[in-house]
Amino acid sequence: MIVILKNDSNEKQLNNLITWLKSLDIDIHFSKGKNTTIMGLIGDTEVVDIDLINALDIVEDVKRIQEPYKNANRKFHPEDTIVDINGVKIGGGNFQIIAGPCSVESEEQICSIAESVKKSRAGLLRGGAFKPRTSPYSFQGMREKGIELLLEAKKVTGLPIVTEIMDLSHLHLFEEVDMIQVGARNMQNFELLKELGKTNKPILLKRGLSSTLQEFLMSAEYIMAGGNENVILCERGIRTFETATRNTLDLSAIPLLKTMTHLPIIVDPSHATGLSKLVKPMSLAATAAGADGLLIEVHNDPVHALCDGPQSLTPEAFDDLAKCVNNILPFAFNDK
Amino acid sequence: MIVILKNDSNEKQLNNLITWLKSLDIDIHFSKGKNTTIMGLIGDTEVVDIDLINALDIVEDVKRIQEPYKNANRKFHPEDTIVDINGVKIGGGNFQIIAGPCSVESEEQICSIAESVKKSRAGLLRGGAFKPRTSPYSFQGMREKGIELLLEAKKVTGLPIVTEIMDLSHLHLFEEVDMIQVGARNMQNFELLKELGKTNKPILLKRGLSSTLQEFLMSAEYIMAGGNENVILCERGIRTFETATRNTLDLSAIPLLKTMTHLPIIVDPSHATGLSKLVKPMSLAATAAGADGLLIEVHNDPVHALCDGPQSLTPEAFDDLAKCVNNILPFAFNDK
Amino acid sequence: MIVILKNDSNEKQLNNLITWLKSLDIDIHFSKGKNTTIMGLIGDTEVVDIDLINALDIVEDVKRIQEPYKNANRKFHPEDTIVDINGVKIGGGNFQIIAGPCSVESEEQICSIAESVKKSRAGLLRGGAFKPRTSPYSFQGMREKGIELLLEAKKVTGLPIVTEIMDLSHLHLFEEVDMIQVGARNMQNFELLKELGKTNKPILLKRGLSSTLQEFLMSAEYIMAGGNENVILCERGIRTFETATRNTLDLSAIPLLKTMTHLPIIVDPSHATGLSKLVKPMSLAATAAGADGLLIEVHNDPVHALCDGPQSLTPEAFDDLAKCVNNILPFAFNDK
Amino acid sequence: MIVILKNDSNEKQLNNLITWLKSLDIDIHFSKGKNTTIMGLIGDTEVVDIDLINALDIVEDVKRIQEPYKNANRKFHPEDTIVDINGVKIGGGNFQIIAGPCSVESEEQICSIAESVKKSRAGLLRGGAFKPRTSPYSFQGMREKGIELLLEAKKVTGLPIVTEIMDLSHLHLFEEVDMIQVGARNMQNFELLKELGKTNKPILLKRGLSSTLQEFLMSAEYIMAGGNENVILCERGIRTFETATRNTLDLSAIPLLKTMTHLPIIVDPSHATGLSKLVKPMSLAATAAGADGLLIEVHNDPVHALCDGPQSLTPEAFDDLAKCVNNILPFAFNDK
Repeated sequence: MIVILKNDSNEKQLNNLITWLKSLDIDIHFSKGKNTTIMGLIGDTEVVDIDLINALDIVEDVKRIQEPYKNANRKFHPEDTIVDINGVKIGGGNFQIIAGPCSVESEEQICSIAESVKKSRAGLLRGGAFKPRTSPYSFQGMREKGIELLLEAKKVTGLPIVTEIMDLSHLHLFEEVDMIQVGARNMQNFELLKELGKTNKPILLKRGLSSTLQEFLMSAEYIMAGGNENVILCERGIRTFETATRNTLDLSAIPLLKTMTHLPIIVDPSHATGLSKLVKPMSLAATAAGADGLLIEVHNDPVHALCDGPQSLTPEAFDDLAKCVNNILPFAFNDK
Repeated sequence: MIVILKNDSNEKQLNNLITWLKSLDIDIHFSKGKNTTIMGLIGDTEVVDIDLINALDIVEDVKRIQEPYKNANRKFHPEDTIVDINGVKIGGGNFQIIAGPCSVESEEQICSIAESVKKSRAGLLRGGAFKPRTSPYSFQGMREKGIELLLEAKKVTGLPIVTEIMDLSHLHLFEEVDMIQVGARNMQNFELLKELGKTNKPILLKRGLSSTLQEFLMSAEYIMAGGNENVILCERGIRTFETATRNTLDLSAIPLLKTMTHLPIIVDPSHATGLSKLVKPMSLAATAAGADGLLIEVHNDPVHALCDGPQSLTPEAFDDLAKCVNNILPFAFNDK
Repeated sequence: MIVILKNDSNEKQLNNLITWLKSLDIDIHFSKGKNTTIMGLIGDTEVVDIDLINALDIVEDVKRIQEPYKNANRKFHPEDTIVDINGVKIGGGNFQIIAGPCSVESEEQICSIAESVKKSRAGLLRGGAFKPRTSPYSFQGMREKGIELLLEAKKVTGLPIVTEIMDLSHLHLFEEVDMIQVGARNMQNFELLKELGKTNKPILLKRGLSSTLQEFLMSAEYIMAGGNENVILCERGIRTFETATRNTLDLSAIPLLKTMTHLPIIVDPSHATGLSKLVKPMSLAATAAGADGLLIEVHNDPVHALCDGPQSLTPEAFDDLAKCVNNILPFAFNDK
Repeated sequence: MIVILKNDSNEKQLNNLITWLKSLDIDIHFSKGKNTTIMGLIGDTEVVDIDLINALDIVEDVKRIQEPYKNANRKFHPEDTIVDINGVKIGGGNFQIIAGPCSVESEEQICSIAESVKKSRAGLLRGGAFKPRTSPYSFQGMREKGIELLLEAKKVTGLPIVTEIMDLSHLHLFEEVDMIQVGARNMQNFELLKELGKTNKPILLKRGLSSTLQEFLMSAEYIMAGGNENVILCERGIRTFETATRNTLDLSAIPLLKTMTHLPIIVDPSHATGLSKLVKPMSLAATAAGADGLLIEVHNDPVHALCDGPQSLTPEAFDDLAKCVNNILPFAFNDK
């Protein structure tokens, strides 16, 4: 960590700072210039709160040299992490498509979609049981019953299931769920992340709407710090000024995250764009950029189209997408 | 609600849509033009999910005429709401400054700050017990003990206290807390909002980092839909491309929210800007724009300055700020 | 165009509005509901200024049904436009890589890069002569001399050249330039766009840092309204809160623009990300998403690396990129 | 300037860098740590291009200690600059309201507004002659004739006039204009800025839609580097995800810019918000935050309301605003 001191530093404050840093077992290396003095802090600077130092009157600026995420950092763990979800692997060369409806609506619906996406070679089934909705007056999901129906579809097809948790108090309902999704709105629900860190479930962590990549990795770090290293990151679009798409899918995040972390990274083009016609091209682009998988919304039949989001594909469109993704896969970006 | 249909609308889908809308007791009024047909939906359109309609192939666009927040809407409740926090009123002409440290650190610290801000005429005491921190390795607050110390400071000074809740499972610890704060990161923690709607505690709801004003009001609506109308909104900066300040304080939100809702609106310039030198000018600006109050971070003494954020004021600076705010108050914007 | 009137519309203002609209040869179709009255405007509503109507006290909201870009609109011109740049075609299935250095520095530099990228099958040569720099103290480009050197490189290699114009007064220097680039900062330099519309040169129009897709097309429309239909759009990243990359490359813009317009769309991953390690993965992603070409920064040799941007590739890295792009190309997204 | 080198720095590149820096008369001070080596660059580092150094493989990060704007920087010019516009002063305690219509439409219109705003104590008259419009089909202003009418209004009222320049080639038309406005879209039209730097006209420089404060000051620096120090900065809203207002007015920019520069700063609440009902509260807030003036859109009479923007005030509303601003002024933020 580099601390740049103001020229006219108050001697007493400076001594307070030095005493405090030494109490944290940090070595200090001074380098005085004509206009500024620079302090290099050496040691386990993870424990030093950068904001606190920045708060001091005597400090011009502070800069961290090392990233504050130990467990997620590729520097200390150069090999790709492979997450095993009940036998289905993601990461380190294992590419998977996770598909299913936005909301679970009935046994018939979820089982029929599950069978259909399995035929198109999806590796996992997704479906919403607890639904975070902007309005309290919108349908909030089938909740507990929704999870039961997903487990039914799992029994029928053998596909591992992924579904979203919205509150810690529901955790006991997720015992047989194969991978737990943390939604974008909960990416910084730190109490939830800590508790999930104590389980050994694979966690699908979605990037927050306005989260930087570093904040994204810090949230993964919350889970990993608890001992659970089975974290899959999911880029799902960020909020920008552009309103032509629901969010702006940030595909540069894929290769950039790959240099920062060893965790697998998948992409959700359905929620990111909010437009079904963009799901296929963005799936191809994400695959080409080196993603470890895709999360795709699929609805079952035209009669029920009304209850599916504008970003959903029909099973036929999904089958076509899966084939085209497979064509791209051998030529996708790979840094090795 | 206005639904604009595509020219070549599939007859069957259109009939499905009409049948579904009628089942919701919605009246439909058609208006056919040369290039487009417009359907006007009349009735309780709150129950109609706008995204679902937008998803249909036959629909070009959908537009809501009425705002989807009934309880928070000023149209149906023209009078300003006044929230009473244990005898201290906010809203409808009642202006309050809520002051205190970012984190509760000790009995001596919190009581000393409480007495000091009370002398400078703060109306309520704030202090963090549970702290949402980006890093799992940063100080997470004194938690339960922090609430106890706040209650101690309340006993000593008589100031009602405000502190943040981070998870539903902690709710029982907030029984004697006078106002519960929902932080920016939890603005769309819908399960938490629903539960707070069942209490009758005043709730201080902070705007999410990337939340629109409409989303902000929908979150207030979650609380109000449960029966709790004691909601105070807090503008605390939004995330933009500008990095010179921590966030961009959106002061236009104050007069604009006042036209949309009857709820009181306060401003937190400390967290919004992240720079202590901007707290005073932004407090004056917020007051002039018509805010119902301010939330100000105050630390106690220079010896402990290290543990306060870069956005904190000393008690002396806070006293000066409070006086200057009082000078502006009689000339502040008031639409009546 | 749909105009939603307020309930309590002032009769006189309404009559003024109707009179004015009729004077513009617009037909009006009224549809009165219980709470709102809707006016449908039929005719050549391009001439109606939407902001002006929105300004009226009696108007609740205005909505355009038709896009305000006639010439760029795919609806009125369903076939892909193919732009011919001195024999090199872009669009309608013709994919091209445009490559070269950020700044022209010397005859040796530009000719050596030109020969090298030609061998790797680049179709056009780019190079900056006039350089828009944030600081007045930074190198502003070789200007007139830079264009001469580009023409030299063209003579040697036969590659058509592309270079940026920064001001109308330099237009006479671009007579032998094959395609004129309008930079992101000049996307809304309307006087420049109008003048370029009077030439018949191919124009490479870059998207502004904070421009919506509709504004982007309106700028193309400025050029086309003057009679010049040879416009190529270039997505080059938008400004968002994320600072890990210089800008956020918005690849969804490619398939979305393709539904809105018939103009070719290329992508500049070098400037968008500002990081050389992201240029290859983002080139593959852009190709997979259906782009009509790429704009890639290439520097010549390690000795001069100092004067190239952090986003530049070496000729070897460019050769590898071009090969990998060619592998993806047959499997790229194509709506037809 | 601080350069942080990677651990495994290539010896040859490092020597190249050192040789180059020495050729620029920069002194280098090394400080080697266990994991990183830091180079402190001392001397006139304005000439060092930070991007070029960042481009080197051997460099981990670069940080500028000194701001790259010499002329605009308050550090080297602690006194407030006062700009004199034909006898009307702005800055250093001189507060002015600049008022007038969005577009000049007729002699009667501009003269009538000019007289009206003068009575309400506006110090300068504004009016658009050249209008930057998103659409080529919208009214582009009266252009040359518009400037003539403004000069007519100046003759009648004695108010100095401010109007926008859109292209260098029009500069000769601005000879009798008292202050030239550079619009947000031209904030980085560097050729225009350079040319304006050669005049001695006061320049009203508006902040770009997506410009950081540092970029804003660098554009002022372009003008000042040419010798013209009469620059007034204007905050007019930035583009964010929020669409409830046209742009997000960034009032923290006022006190923050005041610490960075000695130039006067005014605020345009009309364009920033796009909503007439927000103009008064935001004017009061800007004044309280310490602005040196306001730029307010005023239209003349209800009959012509149609041709004024939704952000315009009537003369009566403007008169009320001016009085309320005067009430706030004595209590406004002042750092001295």
